[in-house]
Amino acid sequence: MQNEIFELQYAMDTFYFLVSGALVMWMAAGFAMLEAGLVRAKNTTEILTKNVALFAIACTMYLICGYEIMYDGGYFLSGVTTVAQMDDAAVAAILEASNEAGFADMGEYAGASDFFFQVVFVATAMSIVSGAVAERMKLWAFLTFAIVMTGLIYPMEGSWTWNGDSVFGIYALDYSDYAGSGIVHLAGAAAALAGVLLLGPRKGKYGADGSVHPIPGANLPLATLGTFILWMGWFGFNGGSTLKLGGIGVANEVANVFLNTNAAAAGGLIGALIVARILFGKADLSMVLNGALAGLVAITADPASPGPLMSTIVGMVGGVIVVFSILFFDKIKIDDPVGALSVHGTVGIFGVMVVCVTGGASIGGQLVGMLTIFVWVFVTSLITWFIIKAVMGIRVSEEEEYEGVDLAECGMEAYPEFVSQN
Amino acid sequence: MQNEIFELQYAMDTFYFLVSGALVMWMAAGFAMLEAGLVRAKNTTEILTKNVALFAIACTMYLICGYEIMYDGGYFLSGVTTVAQMDDAAVAAILEASNEAGFADMGEYAGASDFFFQVVFVATAMSIVSGAVAERMKLWAFLTFAIVMTGLIYPMEGSWTWNGDSVFGIYALDYSDYAGSGIVHLAGAAAALAGVLLLGPRKGKYGADGSVHPIPGANLPLATLGTFILWMGWFGFNGGSTLKLGGIGVANEVANVFLNTNAAAAGGLIGALIVARILFGKADLSMVLNGALAGLVAITADPASPGPLMSTIVGMVGGVIVVFSILFFDKIKIDDPVGALSVHGTVGIFGVMVVCVTGGASIGGQLVGMLTIFVWVFVTSLITWFIIKAVMGIRVSEEEEYEGVDLAECGMEAYPEFVSQN
Amino acid sequence: MQNEIFELQYAMDTFYFLVSGALVMWMAAGFAMLEAGLVRAKNTTEILTKNVALFAIACTMYLICGYEIMYDGGYFLSGVTTVAQMDDAAVAAILEASNEAGFADMGEYAGASDFFFQVVFVATAMSIVSGAVAERMKLWAFLTFAIVMTGLIYPMEGSWTWNGDSVFGIYALDYSDYAGSGIVHLAGAAAALAGVLLLGPRKGKYGADGSVHPIPGANLPLATLGTFILWMGWFGFNGGSTLKLGGIGVANEVANVFLNTNAAAAGGLIGALIVARILFGKADLSMVLNGALAGLVAITADPASPGPLMSTIVGMVGGVIVVFSILFFDKIKIDDPVGALSVHGTVGIFGVMVVCVTGGASIGGQLVGMLTIFVWVFVTSLITWFIIKAVMGIRVSEEEEYEGVDLAECGMEAYPEFVSQN
Repeated sequence: MQNEIFELQYAMDTFYFLVSGALVMWMAAGFAMLEAGLVRAKNTTEILTKNVALFAIACTMYLICGYEIMYDGGYFLSGVTTVAQMDDAAVAAILEASNEAGFADMGEYAGASDFFFQVVFVATAMSIVSGAVAERMKLWAFLTFAIVMTGLIYPMEGSWTWNGDSVFGIYALDYSDYAGSGIVHLAGAAAALAGVLLLGPRKGKYGADGSVHPIPGANLPLATLGTFILWMGWFGFNGGSTLKLGGIGVANEVANVFLNTNAAAAGGLIGALIVARILFGKADLSMVLNGALAGLVAITADPASPGPLMSTIVGMVGGVIVVFSILFFDKIKIDDPVGALSVHGTVGIFGVMVVCVTGGASIGGQLVGMLTIFVWVFVTSLITWFIIKAVMGIRVSEEEEYEGVDLAECGMEAYPEFVSQN
Repeated sequence: MQNEIFELQYAMDTFYFLVSGALVMWMAAGFAMLEAGLVRAKNTTEILTKNVALFAIACTMYLICGYEIMYDGGYFLSGVTTVAQMDDAAVAAILEASNEAGFADMGEYAGASDFFFQVVFVATAMSIVSGAVAERMKLWAFLTFAIVMTGLIYPMEGSWTWNGDSVFGIYALDYSDYAGSGIVHLAGAAAALAGVLLLGPRKGKYGADGSVHPIPGANLPLATLGTFILWMGWFGFNGGSTLKLGGIGVANEVANVFLNTNAAAAGGLIGALIVARILFGKADLSMVLNGALAGLVAITADPASPGPLMSTIVGMVGGVIVVFSILFFDKIKIDDPVGALSVHGTVGIFGVMVVCVTGGASIGGQLVGMLTIFVWVFVTSLITWFIIKAVMGIRVSEEEEYEGVDLAECGMEAYPEFVSQN
Repeated sequence: MQNEIFELQYAMDTFYFLVSGALVMWMAAGFAMLEAGLVRAKNTTEILTKNVALFAIACTMYLICGYEIMYDGGYFLSGVTTVAQMDDAAVAAILEASNEAGFADMGEYAGASDFFFQVVFVATAMSIVSGAVAERMKLWAFLTFAIVMTGLIYPMEGSWTWNGDSVFGIYALDYSDYAGSGIVHLAGAAAALAGVLLLGPRKGKYGADGSVHPIPGANLPLATLGTFILWMGWFGFNGGSTLKLGGIGVANEVANVFLNTNAAAAGGLIGALIVARILFGKADLSMVLNGALAGLVAITADPASPGPLMSTIVGMVGGVIVVFSILFFDKIKIDDPVGALSVHGTVGIFGVMVVCVTGGASIGGQLVGMLTIFVWVFVTSLITWFIIKAVMGIRVSEEEEYEGVDLAECGMEAYPEFVSQN
């Protein structure tokens, strides 16, 4: 009977991983809709193409080498066999091992479900980049970067953090990041920042006199839908990161994670709503949406230990920070069409550091971990973008930018029938 | 081994609650898309802002006081501790209790998962209001009302029904409402009706000669998407309301609820499609969508006891009712841009009463319960709207209404590039 | 205690079926958005109406007779009682049976959850048809066909394959099709092909001189969203087809299915992206989306046995095939606005046959099964379309086609405020 109980626990934890993974996969749709809603109509087809293609590239590169780099140390395709279906002998071995261990240690689930959950995380990190470089980066340069980012850059820092490997054999991290405020979100923002610095702002965004010209997104319902999708998918992102469900203690933990994730998003939204009202006198929807996302990023490094009220406050601070961060980046003329650097970068840093308050992490450990992630991703990304720039160029021509990248890159408009007034 | 079985049951029921809650959270996106699709382009940003902000307010107010009012009687923040992660001693106590009880009574799950499931219900009730008052109500007046509705009005009637408290210590209800045709949907409609009566119709909707001018929605694909999202989310709304999954009897019940919910939506859609064809000679998509939603509302008070064919019929009657109800409200010049009063109010009443047929509820009990809900929500809402009107006003200026509330309230258009012909 | 373990297994497998079914239901939204994005603005309301209405019809017809035809041999409504909630005696009987069987044979779950999972499959098959006949077929003719397709044509071939009945008592199939590359997707495409042949191409699609005029879709973000929804829903479509979760072996299998499904979609997308780049010099988004869907269709007949790298390759070949197939159909002037014949038909055939490589199926068995499905569905569909054509006509008038079917059929435009330039 012990075997049967174990079989159920194994199945339940596998199921839980798969449901979580499907929700994280759904975040790819969220990023696509968010970014498609916040760019201009003439650049919409291209940003959609980038988003679907980066997801496919991430899944394939992580399969070919990323998972191995991150979790096993082999470097090419060895994971492909380990995730295959176990035969009867393997099942028997698992059962025997479980009989020796107590229930509390029965932390087994299908290897393929773990891979599936991990692979959709990689895509999330890469999705962050596409928004920041929107409306001016060449499609194929972006996709080339996606290969390097998802196949090497992200898996390396993932191995130092979630897998606990020492950084190039030099030092080990004492770093706590439950679902990846730093490992996923700050990493994505660091890669984006490197690209944005090389790329420069969109034409017409910043006047010679220091003025900032807002470039409104073409389709706010899409951006709102994208935010809701991300909010929903984040339950899988944070909830699945508990890595196990089948027991009272962990089930409580997963439930807390769901509740706190939701509370932080709500807090972030309210924080941004209030700050935008004070600063601009209006309920600025794009700030409000970024506020909700900021709340989610803020709680991601520790969604398990705080209570829901504390989570609301953590989210709210994230929502306040993101508004000022967006204004700051515009002030220093770093052009980020969707606010990704602020949501995932600035608030990602806040999220990592606030674990010192909510989860008792050491300030030094968090700082060193965060810097390690940032420096590694930023430097390797900068090098990668440089090489791509030298080989194929990263910025579309001025004429293509004026006409919109949709026709140049994809050969089709996103809304061919709707007369545009811009 | 008994402990291990119990741990699995606990984990499974918690997981089931969390998945259901995530689906109900997703309904917030459904309402947002439905309403954004059915208003005019110039009022779209504002309705989106209302929808995301009301969700955040609902989650926060229910955390601060709503859950306590509804389920425990304390009135401020005491729930915050009870939903925290249990420690080992608490887990041990649960296990001991479970050993004394039989399997059938092992109805335990994480408190946080229950809170998460309940909190997204509050937001649903409030989402109903935003559609009915669309295109003319001030954003901040609406959000102020949301605070009162989600923090007090809804939790009070929830305590009399799902928690079984006596109504102000005066009388107890004998009222059966599985997932809330009355408790959630009629309640939302009652709050909306109070607002609509104070607010008056949109300019140009009703001619002085008694004519009714249709004001078509700007984006029907969005409205359709919203309906599909609500349909999907309703599986969590009704399915999660079984409150337990881990046993043969309840698993059968949950499966019936899924099946019946789907069947009723299908029936409602077909009912409205046929009636619209007969009345207007066309397959009126907005009626068809409201028909599906009406089917869902109709089955919500008892999705467990009828068979699927009966559920189809219940839904179909709901779909027929909703068409006539929408025509009726227009006849008496109560302007409801998205048909929320009909879908959630009129059909909510039908849903509550049909339990007398499908589930053997007493007619008197259902009537008294329904009236209690309606009177409480309508009167307190009317008072709240009155106070808000006196303090800050509830209706935008005529010029703002003509120009669209998007620029006035949010400072940005939803579709800035698409030339509008209205 | 054995009983309690069994109760948990029963509940878990039921839960798994219901979650899978909800994901497949969600695919209906995916088809609706995909098709609404790929037609012109003037035909959008109508395609949305077709999509929501066909789902409702499918659910109702399968309830009335389809499920019985497919799985039990009775022909009318007898399933309605079998899916009802079991009483205590039935639960006791199940438990007794389970005590006699070993754990490995405890493959029980709620009958209603099986029905729910099956019923959403029917809708998928029918959704395939709507895209191919878009922009020119009469709404009511289409819905009439939906009644026959979902109530009879699909259930019959389903009974020969998944239920193992002999074909009209003449021969039995030796056919392997895990989740329905042939049973669902090729069947949908065969029904669509029959309709398209009778219907003819859209006006203006093919010039008298043999030229092909592209008719771009009106809303590519919608089409992209639809693809993401289908991708997500496919986890339920393929994953649920394992039919059982509660054990180590099957949990591994389900996890493999999720992983392979995702890998194949990614592969298909990349395949189409590269081929489109080579052929057209652009990253053709509509081809890329169809490539992802082609990858999904390709892996559907055997998502369990291959490893993820093989699945990526299977998907990639599907993505390559779909581009050439779309060009081919245009060459022979078979007009398919969304590419459904290629995605579900051509690639469906590839998916069925590739099981001979990945899963060791016999070439003869796959060929005979595939031909049986195709011939049955194509011939009965052709007859049905013929009768509908004779009785009520299947094609809108030339004027209606020019003006758009939205006003003629539904009486409302999808985007009434956005000035159209076509």
